[in-house]
Amino acid sequence: MTPRDKNIAQIIQSFSCLKPELYGKDFLLTWDKSLDDLKALMHTAEILQALHWKGKNFRIFDHGLAISIFRDNSTRTRFSFASAASILGLTLSELDEVKSQIAHGETVRETANMISFLTEAIGIRDDMYPGEGHTYMLEVADAVSEGFSKGLLPSRPAIVNLQCDLDHPTQTLADLLKLADYFGCLERLHGKKIAMSWAYSPSYGKPLSVPQGVINLMTRFGMDVTLSYPEGYDLLPETITSAEGFAQASGGKFRITHDMKDAFADADVVYPKSWAPMAVMQQRTTLLRSGDKQGLVDLEKACLAQNATHTDWECTEAMMKLTKGGKALYEHCLPADISDVSCKQGEVAKSVFERYRFDTYEQAGFKPYVIAAMIFLSKVQYPHSVLSAFSK
Amino acid sequence: MTPRDKNIAQIIQSFSCLKPELYGKDFLLTWDKSLDDLKALMHTAEILQALHWKGKNFRIFDHGLAISIFRDNSTRTRFSFASAASILGLTLSELDEVKSQIAHGETVRETANMISFLTEAIGIRDDMYPGEGHTYMLEVADAVSEGFSKGLLPSRPAIVNLQCDLDHPTQTLADLLKLADYFGCLERLHGKKIAMSWAYSPSYGKPLSVPQGVINLMTRFGMDVTLSYPEGYDLLPETITSAEGFAQASGGKFRITHDMKDAFADADVVYPKSWAPMAVMQQRTTLLRSGDKQGLVDLEKACLAQNATHTDWECTEAMMKLTKGGKALYEHCLPADISDVSCKQGEVAKSVFERYRFDTYEQAGFKPYVIAAMIFLSKVQYPHSVLSAFSK
Amino acid sequence: MTPRDKNIAQIIQSFSCLKPELYGKDFLLTWDKSLDDLKALMHTAEILQALHWKGKNFRIFDHGLAISIFRDNSTRTRFSFASAASILGLTLSELDEVKSQIAHGETVRETANMISFLTEAIGIRDDMYPGEGHTYMLEVADAVSEGFSKGLLPSRPAIVNLQCDLDHPTQTLADLLKLADYFGCLERLHGKKIAMSWAYSPSYGKPLSVPQGVINLMTRFGMDVTLSYPEGYDLLPETITSAEGFAQASGGKFRITHDMKDAFADADVVYPKSWAPMAVMQQRTTLLRSGDKQGLVDLEKACLAQNATHTDWECTEAMMKLTKGGKALYEHCLPADISDVSCKQGEVAKSVFERYRFDTYEQAGFKPYVIAAMIFLSKVQYPHSVLSAFSK
Repeated sequence: MTPRDKNIAQIIQSFSCLKPELYGKDFLLTWDKSLDDLKALMHTAEILQALHWKGKNFRIFDHGLAISIFRDNSTRTRFSFASAASILGLTLSELDEVKSQIAHGETVRETANMISFLTEAIGIRDDMYPGEGHTYMLEVADAVSEGFSKGLLPSRPAIVNLQCDLDHPTQTLADLLKLADYFGCLERLHGKKIAMSWAYSPSYGKPLSVPQGVINLMTRFGMDVTLSYPEGYDLLPETITSAEGFAQASGGKFRITHDMKDAFADADVVYPKSWAPMAVMQQRTTLLRSGDKQGLVDLEKACLAQNATHTDWECTEAMMKLTKGGKALYEHCLPADISDVSCKQGEVAKSVFERYRFDTYEQAGFKPYVIAAMIFLSKVQYPHSVLSAFSK
Repeated sequence: MTPRDKNIAQIIQSFSCLKPELYGKDFLLTWDKSLDDLKALMHTAEILQALHWKGKNFRIFDHGLAISIFRDNSTRTRFSFASAASILGLTLSELDEVKSQIAHGETVRETANMISFLTEAIGIRDDMYPGEGHTYMLEVADAVSEGFSKGLLPSRPAIVNLQCDLDHPTQTLADLLKLADYFGCLERLHGKKIAMSWAYSPSYGKPLSVPQGVINLMTRFGMDVTLSYPEGYDLLPETITSAEGFAQASGGKFRITHDMKDAFADADVVYPKSWAPMAVMQQRTTLLRSGDKQGLVDLEKACLAQNATHTDWECTEAMMKLTKGGKALYEHCLPADISDVSCKQGEVAKSVFERYRFDTYEQAGFKPYVIAAMIFLSKVQYPHSVLSAFSK
Repeated sequence: MTPRDKNIAQIIQSFSCLKPELYGKDFLLTWDKSLDDLKALMHTAEILQALHWKGKNFRIFDHGLAISIFRDNSTRTRFSFASAASILGLTLSELDEVKSQIAHGETVRETANMISFLTEAIGIRDDMYPGEGHTYMLEVADAVSEGFSKGLLPSRPAIVNLQCDLDHPTQTLADLLKLADYFGCLERLHGKKIAMSWAYSPSYGKPLSVPQGVINLMTRFGMDVTLSYPEGYDLLPETITSAEGFAQASGGKFRITHDMKDAFADADVVYPKSWAPMAVMQQRTTLLRSGDKQGLVDLEKACLAQNATHTDWECTEAMMKLTKGGKALYEHCLPADISDVSCKQGEVAKSVFERYRFDTYEQAGFKPYVIAAMIFLSKVQYPHSVLSAFSK
């Protein structure tokens, strides 16, 4: 079934009892949102996708800017944001911090207002430095709140987290939508076993936000989440604590293991992906700030060497055989480091990736609609009736 | 009162007697425009702003490009132009001279036509070299006039000066709109005292267009304009002569002092802002053209040293006490060099800037509508009836 | 007569008997298209241009992306693509391969799908490496075909060749439209003599796609095509073979000479333009791939020296005198290397270029509509009725 065949009226009906509180709000962290918020978001994303596939329009703006600020590279998220802007009727504008005058020492508080006079949404990626990305987004959010409350801005732009140091909600909600689609519905995810596992990559400095986001989102829907990584590749401690709390609250499970096979055993879903040890990311931030180039070179070398002792953390066919019926769903946020394709040895064996290639594309394909839904629900006070009208 | 509360019909009525001649014209220098032109421009900007705040649409295009050419960095103006393009229904496209083939030795005359086949407006920032920016804009203007008259272009794009070596009209008209708003209306500005003053900054090479533009615009509305700067920081002589003429014609005043306190004494408005001495800008242009890197380094050093002898030219609380009732309005085009915020010592004390922070934001907030009004009035032959229709 | 004065109904009528098969197809090479395809394309471009000049709208999308991928610099084509996107109702988005994560080793197959979830058209310029550009475009095309057929993309983006190593169809079709316009209609081109000639330029590495494209397009319409170049500046052999075949099929002529005067003698049209010898381009690709910087410097030096032995290959007034009545039409894809303007000595004498300046602008002015027509005909199943509706 493609999104074209979905019954939109039914989906709208199915979430009419939810009480989301997303109107006028930003979307920064899934764990700050209620379950109703998350469900409404996913249903809306699903509906927007179905509307688009049916050739129906859901343009809610006839002008205004959607601004993206990318402090790290991006393809998927960049085009997802551009697509969401276009389909909602907004003009895309990228804030290139190099071309602007921001280096002059202008404050975030000021810049945020300066770019917002006709702006409806601001998407930000700032994922490189632990302790910084989320803080920066809050600063932007506070600044536009102040500008709006002082009567300087006609409307308050919605801030959308396109990946920070803590969470990557547009990704993990797309991941979750894929799971709901794959297993039939959100409810069926209860009790399903997912292995969020570290995997070897010959690269360095990959952010922690995906694994942190996955363990804190999937646990809320009652999944049995196992986080696995080699000793030393810890995530931020508070994200572990919260995942434990979510698992308990939902009747799901959460545990950590340092054995990839243990995590994969009997899993319904595997999500093998590399990340840098938190300690390395923190050290790197310190070195970058002090401008210590030699220190950075040494750190990269040490980190790559550390990684290289864990090349056995690869999602091979043998590993996949351990999963439920040998047929767990493979998820990845892409691009994956595929052995013998993008590198000599990486996160996943070529044959495994090939088998799930279109699943990963489908997973990525939810992202533009997740972003559109975040803006939509922040800007539309009565989403049910507006969605119903568009689906006519 | 926010723009949302304005009575649009009344504003339209109030300028129905004006005879602007902006249709089909570019907006390069305020001093080439009649008083009626300037008033019509400001009223239109005010109306467009009010329409937007009321959630009303004033899209006059359903396709076409608005092209920006930035030969210097920009945040505010870049996003203002993008916003104006979006709200008028145009697609924004930036001409990045690095990515294009222009370096091949293509002429301005040719490029201007090549980018204009479906273009309605071209905004240009070229403010670095005395004697160049305005000349370049005229060249672009002539080229598209020729293309249009030869039947090669279906319509002639309107050229908008986003800052040149002479003037910065989108800024100074926003400055003036803020003054009109602050004091009640344009008419009340007559006789009000404004100090356009140089201020210390630990930077170098700031353009002269803002002070030149301010003294040539505010004098036209009968203001009592004092220009103050340390000896050696002269503006272009012809801009002084014209400001004197405007003051005389409007019943305003214009004088120069080399004492900041003298300028601030009893002022209703202060506009303390750094700029480079004209002579330095000219020398710099010569050195840049000859590729004399050492000369440029030496010039920067000498200029910063010269600046450093004038650190007392700062808009401090003590300075502000000298103004009318100690309560003059502080204006700045932003970003300001704020002491202890963006630099150790700069143009303005932190406490002064903080007190007027939202006034400066409001001032900046007029800019998107000033740009939109420039394009609107160049493209719409009967603005009154079109504006009336949109406000229904 | 400007495009504003054209009788659209008549043009629509005139090609109602054609059976183009462009719906759902890419536009990569003119020689892969039928004569009906090419004629329908040109008539549609002409109609879209006339509609725009008459102030009529032909927006067929109300959202969606048009993505451009420029692997080489561009002004004309960049803005032509932007204009086409805007007028069709698409949001322009450029894929900047530097800012994206593509360098990570992501496959073309993957990226192509990742950017296409809401994308209607992808324009690609990749003209630097013989054997690469067209291959890359096919790879992108195959990837989105696969994504579409697997149900991952709601529609298949149309791929438009904005210049590859083989052909430059948006340019050569604009060239041909200019010829049809100049001589009255396509039919009158039969038997007209065109000299596609190499010309001297003090630059290096210019692609071969324009001459290859011209000889393979003009021969299809019965023109008498002479290709002239100094020994050693051969084009790709297969493009020669196909041009010979096309001339034979259409009743036109095709021959090669190494004497510029011979080519110009009695010509109705001349197209003097520099290109690099195929062998140099191939060597350069090898050197670039192996990262041999010294080799590249040496090659450039050798190539410029080789060029410099042919400075007599210039389109001078004397050369023009040899053409039919001394009044052949001069064509160029721009920017031209004009002697004493963009370089000391180049492809064309200043006085010749000046005489045909506006002809070259008019030629370039067709390009936005050629691109728009390519997207239009790929996306609209019944173009006649849709065009008729727009022209009402």
